[in-house]
Amino acid sequence: MSSVKIGLLGLGVVGGGTWDVLQRNATEIARRAGRDIEVVAVAVRDTAKARALLGDSVRISTDAMEIVRDPNIDIVVELVGGTELAREWVLESIAQGKHVVTANKALLAKHGNEIFAAAHERGVMVAFEAAVAGGIPIIKAMREGLTANRIQWVAGIINGTTNYILSEMRNRGVSFAEALADAQRLGYAEADPTFDIEGIDAAHKLSLLASLAFGIPVQFSKAHIEGITSLAQEDIQHAQRLGYTVKLLGITRARPEGIELRVHPTLIPADSMLANVQGAMNAVLVHGDAVGQTVYYGAGAGALPTASAVVADLVDVARLLNAAPEQRVPYLAFQHDAMADTPILPMEEVQSAYYLRLRVDDRPGVLADVARILASAEISIGSMIQEPAGDHADIMFLTHEAREGAINGALSQIQSLPFVRSAVTRLRVEA
Amino acid sequence: MSSVKIGLLGLGVVGGGTWDVLQRNATEIARRAGRDIEVVAVAVRDTAKARALLGDSVRISTDAMEIVRDPNIDIVVELVGGTELAREWVLESIAQGKHVVTANKALLAKHGNEIFAAAHERGVMVAFEAAVAGGIPIIKAMREGLTANRIQWVAGIINGTTNYILSEMRNRGVSFAEALADAQRLGYAEADPTFDIEGIDAAHKLSLLASLAFGIPVQFSKAHIEGITSLAQEDIQHAQRLGYTVKLLGITRARPEGIELRVHPTLIPADSMLANVQGAMNAVLVHGDAVGQTVYYGAGAGALPTASAVVADLVDVARLLNAAPEQRVPYLAFQHDAMADTPILPMEEVQSAYYLRLRVDDRPGVLADVARILASAEISIGSMIQEPAGDHADIMFLTHEAREGAINGALSQIQSLPFVRSAVTRLRVEA
Ligand SMILES: NC(=O)c1ccc[n+]([C@@H]2O[C@H](COP(=O)([O-])OP(=O)(O)OC[C@H]3O[C@@H](n4cnc5c(N)ncnc54)[C@H](OP(=O)(O)O)[C@@H]3O)[C@@H](O)[C@H]2O)c1
Ligand SMILES: NC(=O)c1ccc[n+]([C@@H]2O[C@H](COP(=O)([O-])OP(=O)(O)OC[C@H]3O[C@@H](n4cnc5c(N)ncnc54)[C@H](OP(=O)(O)O)[C@@H]3O)[C@@H](O)[C@H]2O)c1
Repeated sequence: MSSVKIGLLGLGVVGGGTWDVLQRNATEIARRAGRDIEVVAVAVRDTAKARALLGDSVRISTDAMEIVRDPNIDIVVELVGGTELAREWVLESIAQGKHVVTANKALLAKHGNEIFAAAHERGVMVAFEAAVAGGIPIIKAMREGLTANRIQWVAGIINGTTNYILSEMRNRGVSFAEALADAQRLGYAEADPTFDIEGIDAAHKLSLLASLAFGIPVQFSKAHIEGITSLAQEDIQHAQRLGYTVKLLGITRARPEGIELRVHPTLIPADSMLANVQGAMNAVLVHGDAVGQTVYYGAGAGALPTASAVVADLVDVARLLNAAPEQRVPYLAFQHDAMADTPILPMEEVQSAYYLRLRVDDRPGVLADVARILASAEISIGSMIQEPAGDHADIMFLTHEAREGAINGALSQIQSLPFVRSAVTRLRVEA
Repeated sequence: MSSVKIGLLGLGVVGGGTWDVLQRNATEIARRAGRDIEVVAVAVRDTAKARALLGDSVRISTDAMEIVRDPNIDIVVELVGGTELAREWVLESIAQGKHVVTANKALLAKHGNEIFAAAHERGVMVAFEAAVAGGIPIIKAMREGLTANRIQWVAGIINGTTNYILSEMRNRGVSFAEALADAQRLGYAEADPTFDIEGIDAAHKLSLLASLAFGIPVQFSKAHIEGITSLAQEDIQHAQRLGYTVKLLGITRARPEGIELRVHPTLIPADSMLANVQGAMNAVLVHGDAVGQTVYYGAGAGALPTASAVVADLVDVARLLNAAPEQRVPYLAFQHDAMADTPILPMEEVQSAYYLRLRVDDRPGVLADVARILASAEISIGSMIQEPAGDHADIMFLTHEAREGAINGALSQIQSLPFVRSAVTRLRVEA
């Protein structure tokens, strides 16, 4: 069979890795795919750098759109990043009847619904395994491996940078700022780490996982997002003493009233699978009604792991190049005409257990007052530790599950108690 | 689109679970598959029991072959077990041009090559996600999710019964016999547990995983198999003190000289992912050259988790019912005409680190003699602990990696030393 012709947009970390994997494992890949996968054109800005890597066999262009419109190309692989140019290239690829593979979670979080609709209309594939959790085949697992299930919830460590920082904060006792600086020095965090440390990148990915889980459109704008920038070393230590580890989790869960969609630092039991995911590694827990709990673990980023996912998509797409659309797996796991309009719950309606830390005057009656406020909001306390520190004391509570709205109400009352010395710290807890 | 018609052979644990999942999640499944999946006929021995479960809508027969030959049926789902009748039904289904889904690892370990060859010839699919690690989509991950990789090794906890027993032996300090009796009482082990505790079931599954990893025919008969029946509580305890946990692993690894294929109790670091897989759960670690280490975790057996895998296969097969064969994923990940004849290494050629326990007379010079034998076989010692116990002593060694043949030679020399009191215990160690 003739080779499948690829146009590669971008030859950076992931694009370079993809080129590399396609070269060195060409035989292995063809033995599986049944045909060769051949990169025929590459778009970059710096052609000299690209030429040095690619040699003479491949056409290099600084005009991505020209490659998108090249009639010889079967699949466009978008590995540039960004949401505006990438959107134009992807939509034009689709309009040209080409299939698309992308690692761009920001693009799909923002423009996924538009892109999938256009692709559906035109009858082409858009594959994005590399957009979530790098080399872990989590899109495939959720889209194809768990089709028998009503998915109940998904919780993932889906940002390696923040997991690296949290691992360092826990294992070495350093502050957030120090861990971030280390991560930047070692290449685990970018010069501008905002998307990672503010939880935005995780939320991009989570909004895709939620669609795969529940058959809803991509709704990044409705996600509740908290990063790790204000996480204090002392809370990590208190958590540890209470038997928990703090991780930045993306959580999406089906409730009778709607779907929870949230990214925030979370206390999870220290002996749970996710708690033991160290450094820049990723892991996703998926709970289905038939299968129960499953976990998928691996490298969430990096040239070769991400390329592993890009190339797996290429093999899938190559196989089904000329298949009828109904023979292909739907973009977001559910048939395009069978998507649900289940609402995303506002954060006030979310249910969670909580960790609370209060700095208070160290005098009798304080605990009673706080406990009374929690009780009247029907928030029950699971455990408590109190730590005197000179003239004040720190009190840490773990609550049972409660509505976020109820906690917010109680916290604003507690905050205004005269003996509460500073802002109450609140973190969510997953069992 | 019209529904896909299923003939179900067997309505026991997995068959009943499959029926159950197809009923209760019918809407969800059709929203993904794009069409209904309908069980139209079921084969059992006891029709009254089946009728009570199925109601009147489904044809029930005691003649599986009659269902296999029913021209209305698109997919035969073999959930009876055994290797002789099942082989006949599956081969006849294929001859009839029907697709097959099975959970039967014993069948595929023994007759897989024959079955896949027949299916290839006839152009039908044979899917077997449920045959390895129950609900974990490990077949899909290896066959489709990691196609970019040269797989380097696979190590799995792929038998829940033995993992339950080993977890109990470690956590509660009970003997193998006691843990087995508990497992039987709780339904984690069958009345005749031989296949599980002797490692045969794990080896069935491992031989399938090795084919998916390396593109070789199924070669169960060449697997080295050791079960857990002679594992002593004291070795579990010594392992723990050395920082290890004992698990029954299936290991397959590509070496320059050939492929290792082996099931045996194995010491693995106590903080590794696999060491923390408790009870009857399963987990498989796959190491690829691009993706690095990935791990897949979940329930390895039980009605609903196994049904989750069966139904996922049904959705896949339903989608590609009328696709061209080249549009389908190859049975064993690699194209039928691109399989390799890489040899399976005899156990003597396998490389491993080892744990050795010797009971010896407690007198000077003993350690020196043993160390000299190991040294002259070029086996280097990583660590050693010695435990005096009255007039004798137990010595435990951890060696660095060595050839199994070299260890065998050294052990037979050590065994014949006059001061060695009983059979030397040897367990393999994975880093
Ligand atoms: N890095 C990871 O580990 C990872 C993991 C998962 C997903 N992703 C996603 O993968 C995508 C690529 O990330 P990356 O880390 O590979 O980025 P990168 O290293 O910055 O590479 C970007 C590439 O795009 C090229 N490029 C930029 N603007 C272009 C333009 N206007 N026209 C043509 N080419 C242009 C660059 O060429 P020049 O070098 O010539 O400027 C470079 O080759 C992003 O969507 C990212 O979110 C990355
Ligand atoms: N159990 C698990 O968790 C699990 C997990 C993974 C894979 N598997 C595999 O799945 C398969 C089925 O296992 P299972 O545990 O479900 O077995 P099971 O509970 O013993 O059920 C076997 C079923 O097959 C029927 N059957 C037996 N002989 C038959 C015959 N000659 N003709 C027609 N029907 C016949 C039985 O019917 P009657 O009841 O009427 O006799 C029963 O419905 C096996 O290959 C097993 O290895 C099982």
